[in-house]
Amino acid sequence: MKLLSIVLAAGKGTRMKSKKHKVLHPLCGKPMVGHVIDVLKGVDSSRIVTIIGHGGEEVRSYLGDQVEYVLQEEQLGTGHAVMQAKPLLKDQEGITIVTYADAPLITPESLKKFIEAHKESQAAATILTAELDNPYGYGRIVRGSQNEVTSIVEQKDCSPVEREIKEINTGTYCVDNKKLFNALDLVTNNNVQGEYYLTDIIRILKQQNEKIEGHILEDANESFGINDRVQLADAEKIMRGRILKEHMRNGVTIIDPSNTYVDSGVTIGMDTTLMPGTKISENAQIGSSCTIGPQSEINNTKIGDYVTIKQSVVVDSTVGNHTTVGPFAYLRPGSNIGEHVKIGDFVEIKNATIDDHSKVSHLSYVGDAKVGQNVNIGCGAVTVNYDGFKKHLTEIEDEAFVGSNVNLIAPIKVGKGSYVVAGSTLTEDIEADSVAIARVKQTTKEGYASKLKSRIKNKYNN
Amino acid sequence: MKLLSIVLAAGKGTRMKSKKHKVLHPLCGKPMVGHVIDVLKGVDSSRIVTIIGHGGEEVRSYLGDQVEYVLQEEQLGTGHAVMQAKPLLKDQEGITIVTYADAPLITPESLKKFIEAHKESQAAATILTAELDNPYGYGRIVRGSQNEVTSIVEQKDCSPVEREIKEINTGTYCVDNKKLFNALDLVTNNNVQGEYYLTDIIRILKQQNEKIEGHILEDANESFGINDRVQLADAEKIMRGRILKEHMRNGVTIIDPSNTYVDSGVTIGMDTTLMPGTKISENAQIGSSCTIGPQSEINNTKIGDYVTIKQSVVVDSTVGNHTTVGPFAYLRPGSNIGEHVKIGDFVEIKNATIDDHSKVSHLSYVGDAKVGQNVNIGCGAVTVNYDGFKKHLTEIEDEAFVGSNVNLIAPIKVGKGSYVVAGSTLTEDIEADSVAIARVKQTTKEGYASKLKSRIKNKYNN
Amino acid sequence: MKLLSIVLAAGKGTRMKSKKHKVLHPLCGKPMVGHVIDVLKGVDSSRIVTIIGHGGEEVRSYLGDQVEYVLQEEQLGTGHAVMQAKPLLKDQEGITIVTYADAPLITPESLKKFIEAHKESQAAATILTAELDNPYGYGRIVRGSQNEVTSIVEQKDCSPVEREIKEINTGTYCVDNKKLFNALDLVTNNNVQGEYYLTDIIRILKQQNEKIEGHILEDANESFGINDRVQLADAEKIMRGRILKEHMRNGVTIIDPSNTYVDSGVTIGMDTTLMPGTKISENAQIGSSCTIGPQSEINNTKIGDYVTIKQSVVVDSTVGNHTTVGPFAYLRPGSNIGEHVKIGDFVEIKNATIDDHSKVSHLSYVGDAKVGQNVNIGCGAVTVNYDGFKKHLTEIEDEAFVGSNVNLIAPIKVGKGSYVVAGSTLTEDIEADSVAIARVKQTTKEGYASKLKSRIKNKYNN
Repeated sequence: MKLLSIVLAAGKGTRMKSKKHKVLHPLCGKPMVGHVIDVLKGVDSSRIVTIIGHGGEEVRSYLGDQVEYVLQEEQLGTGHAVMQAKPLLKDQEGITIVTYADAPLITPESLKKFIEAHKESQAAATILTAELDNPYGYGRIVRGSQNEVTSIVEQKDCSPVEREIKEINTGTYCVDNKKLFNALDLVTNNNVQGEYYLTDIIRILKQQNEKIEGHILEDANESFGINDRVQLADAEKIMRGRILKEHMRNGVTIIDPSNTYVDSGVTIGMDTTLMPGTKISENAQIGSSCTIGPQSEINNTKIGDYVTIKQSVVVDSTVGNHTTVGPFAYLRPGSNIGEHVKIGDFVEIKNATIDDHSKVSHLSYVGDAKVGQNVNIGCGAVTVNYDGFKKHLTEIEDEAFVGSNVNLIAPIKVGKGSYVVAGSTLTEDIEADSVAIARVKQTTKEGYASKLKSRIKNKYNN
Repeated sequence: MKLLSIVLAAGKGTRMKSKKHKVLHPLCGKPMVGHVIDVLKGVDSSRIVTIIGHGGEEVRSYLGDQVEYVLQEEQLGTGHAVMQAKPLLKDQEGITIVTYADAPLITPESLKKFIEAHKESQAAATILTAELDNPYGYGRIVRGSQNEVTSIVEQKDCSPVEREIKEINTGTYCVDNKKLFNALDLVTNNNVQGEYYLTDIIRILKQQNEKIEGHILEDANESFGINDRVQLADAEKIMRGRILKEHMRNGVTIIDPSNTYVDSGVTIGMDTTLMPGTKISENAQIGSSCTIGPQSEINNTKIGDYVTIKQSVVVDSTVGNHTTVGPFAYLRPGSNIGEHVKIGDFVEIKNATIDDHSKVSHLSYVGDAKVGQNVNIGCGAVTVNYDGFKKHLTEIEDEAFVGSNVNLIAPIKVGKGSYVVAGSTLTEDIEADSVAIARVKQTTKEGYASKLKSRIKNKYNN
Repeated sequence: MKLLSIVLAAGKGTRMKSKKHKVLHPLCGKPMVGHVIDVLKGVDSSRIVTIIGHGGEEVRSYLGDQVEYVLQEEQLGTGHAVMQAKPLLKDQEGITIVTYADAPLITPESLKKFIEAHKESQAAATILTAELDNPYGYGRIVRGSQNEVTSIVEQKDCSPVEREIKEINTGTYCVDNKKLFNALDLVTNNNVQGEYYLTDIIRILKQQNEKIEGHILEDANESFGINDRVQLADAEKIMRGRILKEHMRNGVTIIDPSNTYVDSGVTIGMDTTLMPGTKISENAQIGSSCTIGPQSEINNTKIGDYVTIKQSVVVDSTVGNHTTVGPFAYLRPGSNIGEHVKIGDFVEIKNATIDDHSKVSHLSYVGDAKVGQNVNIGCGAVTVNYDGFKKHLTEIEDEAFVGSNVNLIAPIKVGKGSYVVAGSTLTEDIEADSVAIARVKQTTKEGYASKLKSRIKNKYNN
């Protein structure tokens, strides 16, 4: 039996107040429609048809060719939206899931159970439902003596008894595909709003003596829909909590889950601790027994075991085992840091390899460089990689010692075991085992400081 | 009909355990009494009389002449406190709001509704009430057959039936001004504490056959009073949540509202995202489509559109469109940053203009300076603005290139399109199109590093 | 009457998924078993016997000789675990507290009340109980007509009526020591799991007509047990909240308690404000009227009054009154900062004394140094303390002025009132009142920049 999906993504989302399409607003680093599509792919939906409308090009540009698209030119209601998929799907045998691109909290597990329940009951349609403490505003699920669904009653049409029903329609359905489009043909817009409502298919199928079932979500949060940014923040919180719980259950200590941000797709090893204010995103891979944070941002980076990263930003890089980074370091894209390395405070690394056991302890910039093992780069030392036109390479071989506030004007090579004296600016390569110096001998004028100070002071007084 | 206000601010607030007066403790950046006065001004109260006591000078010094003051010399109860306003207000025709300086969460909207309800009902007094799940400890509102208030019953005097009443007295009243002071004249201190209670006026007015109404707050949180710092933190959380919700509804994405701090008075444009750990205060203005944070602090600064500010502190400055700041930058007061500028990591700017398309990428200090367009300031370059006595100006004209670790000893001017070679210390102005250099030629002693190292090592061994 | 304690710490804790023993996972900076032992010492338990098992050496290594240890070689149930203490304790007259090393939230106050209740009632055993809204899964406390405990009924054995009981067994007991071991002798493993259950002693004592009481915890949270890292995070949150509330009640303003991390053992003075993202640990002592944070980490440091520390990390140091640190400063171990000092942005201090009224404003490293009063250390100035082999001392006497980007090659001494010119590298001591300089005169080639640029550009084009 084929599994088809129709995703409604045509709504204008005006309450988001955004130039960006509503369904492209991210949740834990991924646009909400991306989450929905991933869940549908997670249940092996063979075709996914996305109904797009206003701003649809933006959606299409994000999702690419992993789904099919149909344009709903006018917004004439949810039934009308689903109807747009008719040319593509009407002849298919199978089950169709109809769902919303702005309800990204459903899990593949729950969707699987929903589909299983639908198959088992052999209903024409199964409604995904949820039980809410406060169901006000939602369509209520009215059930009959066999526990089958008899109707969905909208808030405004509820009798006093129906108003007390806690089970509501989430808007997601499993429907026999052919019956879906046959029923849709019978939906009319004879109502105050003049819209074609998808929920009408339940009434129509019922009139055709079809069996309608309701499947209750275990966690009502999974049906949460997003219409404004308050709801976006609420949904993000729910999804974030889920991701973090999974990491904790796998052996990651998270000091404060309410202040830690890990995107989906990140892996973290056992016995690693995440300190508060940490943000890990874009498929970063963190090893075991690390300490990350506080206040660190790790993006698309592979980090080994026993690594410490404190108050730092690390992007598109790799960091080897037993290395420490920060506090206050910035590893920009292309930083490949070895094992047992120390990247200290106020250090920027960019597009550079720093090999095992080397140290860049403070106030340095190492960019476009290849640094060997056991190298010591002194405080304030800088690779001068830019001449105003191009970036050039600096090579510092194993065991070299680069003194404080040294400038290495690239392209330049510092040979193995060499020693560059503090305060020097180097423009030429030095061979292995060389000492390089470029500085002036100190002149001291004793008893002159007070005179100098008087002179400066007098200048201001005249 | 005149609207008058009496604000009770004489309490000692001993539970705050502070040298600072209780009502001056800030909430979202503004002292709590400031919030109360702003709300009263928001409903166009024509006169606001603040009852001050112990530490009143501090309150007066903060509020200035926007309100009138009366000193309550002895703390003889709330009725006695309000009575102090008699000399100023007793002859006025109008409605008087009596409220507390330590209850800053009421909104102008709610206060307006309260006053409207009072006017409509033509009651002598209207009590602002709230419904609490746990009303223990509060005075209960007893209502009669017409839903009018018949009495306020304190916890200790409650019958079992009264104890179940959820509606409580918030302590805020709307009263006909003349009836207020007439009733206050009849309040006595014949009670265990020997105090004059303001609530007694309700009983007195009732005895005079006056009509008393109760107006229920929609959100009971608005009546929250602050007596210690736990309550201060709770109140701050409520107010913060409100401010953030308003921004979200206006189109600002806030990744985690429970970890974002925006003071009242801040404006933020549509499609701007606030990352966690961000604090924006003192009437900062943020443009649209910006990304602010994580862990950034923006204070009294105007920021354009499409600006990125990461892990940085920005105070009393301006930042133009499309500029990026940080991570780890510090813009001190008087930083005027143009458009498409890059202020990178470990950079401090102070009292300086950085014009469009210029870059200060890393480890630099630019202070007391005027930097033109398309200027590149190298890593570690410093404006040496201080000679031990005075600060001096550095001017760097358009298209100039200042090399790494350069010192520009101010006052100094680097002419348009000039090139200052890395590692140089400049003391004299250079004209446009000049190359300036001040460094020593490199000397390399090959094969000498191992000898030098042995020499150093031997020194330690002897 | 002697007070004895038996602490069960032999569980494997597999759900923690950790190489570290479960009871050694820290909560607010202290391993959970440490909290439990501290509470037992807080109620003056004269002997504390810790039952260890798998990984017990690790526990023993942490707790040291403050407790006695017994090894439970096989894990045959809680009764079997307690039985291991028999050789050590069986002859003692007194009361024995039996409790769990993974239940660290009980307070000394509650434990004291529990012991008092036990003594007053003269029961053979008193069970520490808690009332839970959702008691599912816990052993229910069944009470008799005198309110005495008649039995503990496990979830699976509950009758419908018993299932409704909200009072549960926390697993902590006070028992007459001799009666405890006598009862334990009668516990068997005739049950499905084949384990010896500690709870069986209640049934046995009851059969012996002993009096059993139950003492209800005022705050059920105190009985919270930790089995995985989700519960670890939950427990940390509860303990953190408690610590912070105590500080707030003592006069500390905490802007956001849900984003502030203060370990137990930290002292903070009145009118100090903690900004969000702040972490204070290891017995740090903070004075009064300070502002700490946002995003600062203070570890084992003594801080005076009126100190401001922003976006900084301070470890194993002291900071004097009226000093400001940060944003973005790093005080490493051994930093002794005087009064009215300014440690500015991108500054690292290590093993150094900075005396009163001195300034290290930006981009500097001062390590292994002794800096006097009223010293000004310019931007980018560095103490070059390391020659590749050893660290050396830098001394800078009072009133000295060290210019920007200066290197002081240690060992070196800058005499009182001396002036080191910006851009100089100093290798020799200078006497008081000296001016020292080591730099090259500036050469300016006018009209040469455009030629230089063309030359560079041409190089790339060829």
